[in-house]
Amino acid sequence: MIAFEELSRKGQKAKDAAYELSTFSSIQKNQALQAMADALKAQQDEILAANAIDVEAGKQKGMSKALLDRLLLTPKRIDEMAQGLIDLISLPDPIGEVLSQKRRPNGLEIAKMRVPLGVVGIIYEARPNVTVDAAGLCIKSGNATLLRGGSEAIHSNIALIKVIAAAATAAGLPDGAIQLIEDTRREVAQAMMTMNEYIDVLIPRGGAGLIQTVVKTATVPVIETGVGNCHIFVDKSADLTMAEKIIINAKTQRPGVCNAMETLLVHEEVAATFLPQIAQALQQKNVELRGCPQTSKIIAGIQAATDEDYATEFLDLILAVRVVAHFDEALEHIRRYSSGHSEAIITNDYSRARKFTQRVDAAAVYVNASTRFTDGSQFGLGAEIGISTQKLHSRGPMGLEELTTIKYIGYGDGQVRE
Amino acid sequence: MIAFEELSRKGQKAKDAAYELSTFSSIQKNQALQAMADALKAQQDEILAANAIDVEAGKQKGMSKALLDRLLLTPKRIDEMAQGLIDLISLPDPIGEVLSQKRRPNGLEIAKMRVPLGVVGIIYEARPNVTVDAAGLCIKSGNATLLRGGSEAIHSNIALIKVIAAAATAAGLPDGAIQLIEDTRREVAQAMMTMNEYIDVLIPRGGAGLIQTVVKTATVPVIETGVGNCHIFVDKSADLTMAEKIIINAKTQRPGVCNAMETLLVHEEVAATFLPQIAQALQQKNVELRGCPQTSKIIAGIQAATDEDYATEFLDLILAVRVVAHFDEALEHIRRYSSGHSEAIITNDYSRARKFTQRVDAAAVYVNASTRFTDGSQFGLGAEIGISTQKLHSRGPMGLEELTTIKYIGYGDGQVRE
Repeated sequence: MIAFEELSRKGQKAKDAAYELSTFSSIQKNQALQAMADALKAQQDEILAANAIDVEAGKQKGMSKALLDRLLLTPKRIDEMAQGLIDLISLPDPIGEVLSQKRRPNGLEIAKMRVPLGVVGIIYEARPNVTVDAAGLCIKSGNATLLRGGSEAIHSNIALIKVIAAAATAAGLPDGAIQLIEDTRREVAQAMMTMNEYIDVLIPRGGAGLIQTVVKTATVPVIETGVGNCHIFVDKSADLTMAEKIIINAKTQRPGVCNAMETLLVHEEVAATFLPQIAQALQQKNVELRGCPQTSKIIAGIQAATDEDYATEFLDLILAVRVVAHFDEALEHIRRYSSGHSEAIITNDYSRARKFTQRVDAAAVYVNASTRFTDGSQFGLGAEIGISTQKLHSRGPMGLEELTTIKYIGYGDGQVRE
Repeated sequence: MIAFEELSRKGQKAKDAAYELSTFSSIQKNQALQAMADALKAQQDEILAANAIDVEAGKQKGMSKALLDRLLLTPKRIDEMAQGLIDLISLPDPIGEVLSQKRRPNGLEIAKMRVPLGVVGIIYEARPNVTVDAAGLCIKSGNATLLRGGSEAIHSNIALIKVIAAAATAAGLPDGAIQLIEDTRREVAQAMMTMNEYIDVLIPRGGAGLIQTVVKTATVPVIETGVGNCHIFVDKSADLTMAEKIIINAKTQRPGVCNAMETLLVHEEVAATFLPQIAQALQQKNVELRGCPQTSKIIAGIQAATDEDYATEFLDLILAVRVVAHFDEALEHIRRYSSGHSEAIITNDYSRARKFTQRVDAAAVYVNASTRFTDGSQFGLGAEIGISTQKLHSRGPMGLEELTTIKYIGYGDGQVRE
């Protein structure tokens, strides 16, 4: 019971803070960001001590090396978090921008103005950097934020929030602008997902399991992020040297992220030439290949790809490979298996490049470029709160503008409707 | 069981149709709209006969006059529906518009292009005109639509869909672009709300009960529409003649719609002058007043307003009235009771006008104009599928652009990520 009281008390506080924050000037918000960054650096010992408790507990529980690495904070990583906040200062404030203003025939002038969403709820896993990143993006865009991180990082999160929330309040932000739900029980997260009264949008950040739970449970509007089953199709007209360079980049530069490539599709007219070449290059990078029967005929000794493989976001040095008989078969494969994140074609054929970009239904579709570019900083957004794979509200990398909504303002001098 | 098979079969068909429709040219879509309009007129006898069955059944069930009127079709109303489709032809096609295109430092050019949402599900009540309006808007914006109307209008809806879907297909649109879920059982609607695999967005259209059911049940992203508990605040600096004109318009011009006024707030410095004046004007229009204690002192013989009254969207000739001690009390009242639809201030004070538009959190905020303007045609959108009262995706009147999402297209020549 106490947990739910904490939840609605913090919800109300967030709502009140959002009401105040919506009219804060950029100067005020930037001062708070600077204060938060300074406090992180000044109080890093406290944060590192709290983080050490989480890391030790993670080790005891047999957490994987990769997860432990995501959980671990170091002085350098705290500096990077602080720098992330400082970088937000120089980004343009999206709030108050008038996207259009029109005078209607009756003289009523209707402006469409960008305003904050209100209260943004973030549900995430054991990455303490999300705590600071999300809080910073929400503050800059005039939103209050209610954070709910994983239990594995709870000591780190409590310490981080204590430091940045105090700094923000001292710099003049309303109390309640940045809050953490400290009770990490599952039922508390579930209750948070139905707090329509207090939360305007929920953004889950984490693995596919977490995201699907939020999508299925929440009655608060959700922005679905993340899962990327990304394909690259090497067309018969492709520059094969370029294709190799792009595939190596998309698969191996950082295999554990959502915009990494998971399946290679090759036009059968170039399969006999290209597959041995790319297989060698990928195997040098320790990539395990899983192929269709035709692939296996060309590259000996690889595992057969199952339907399951084509549907999987490996997030690892594993690549599914399929030879397609023609362009439309590539489109059909992508249509069936794509998670709507990032898809690419390597081609020098104008009409196929055009058709691919028209037909493939994904947040980002590339011609002759790596899928790895689907990213807020690469798109020039400056910072990113996640990558939306849904179609409502925003799609693709979400920066400050994607954390806003609009309000219509009608300026009249007595207009009434006829 | 059969119902759920119908549902997933139609869902798949809609998804396939959406894939085709997304690349249709405006010319093709406009031809279909014209064919649909022509067919409605040519086959009106069939539609009227089906409608007569629904109307008769409604009378037997003791349906209210207002509901029967919404259900009733006449040759004139069918002509209006057809005209609605024809009006869409001249509106600009939103699809394919590039909202921005930027060259990144590495030469990669990233375009942000407007594309259809995909499959739009509409859940509505006993208004057969929604069937045609929604189908037309979805077609023009390149979306397939899956309609689920109320059981009271089922014969009308089946007849309408039969006519317009056949005309659309004959004009070259993919089969499945416009479909009706004919099974009107509640559990079928509920199953539709969780068809994330097939439906990209759900738009409920109807009363508060229907909308809340959809918001609470759906796992498919929802755009919440409609409920409008709209306020007008008469500031002490208001032009009281203008205030009267606007209030009479907002309350009585069409009291049954979501942008009609429901509560009047009056600054106490002008209450003694203004309340008798406006009470007389409203009572001449048969508006029942329910007032706070201070209002009752000034206008004798009116019913006391309860907290419940302030929270109610009457949709009727009833108005709650409250005298407020100062501007901030008006803001607080609105903040507490507003449904975030449309709010207005009548004032000649610059700083209060500014503060009101900044502070009031609603889809539309007016200075010296009627709340009745929150409407697609009044905003110049040409047509409207509903008025969003949520903050995600779209807010306020939703026209063709609000039925779209975006896709990023990256044009490269071999770019990889460093």
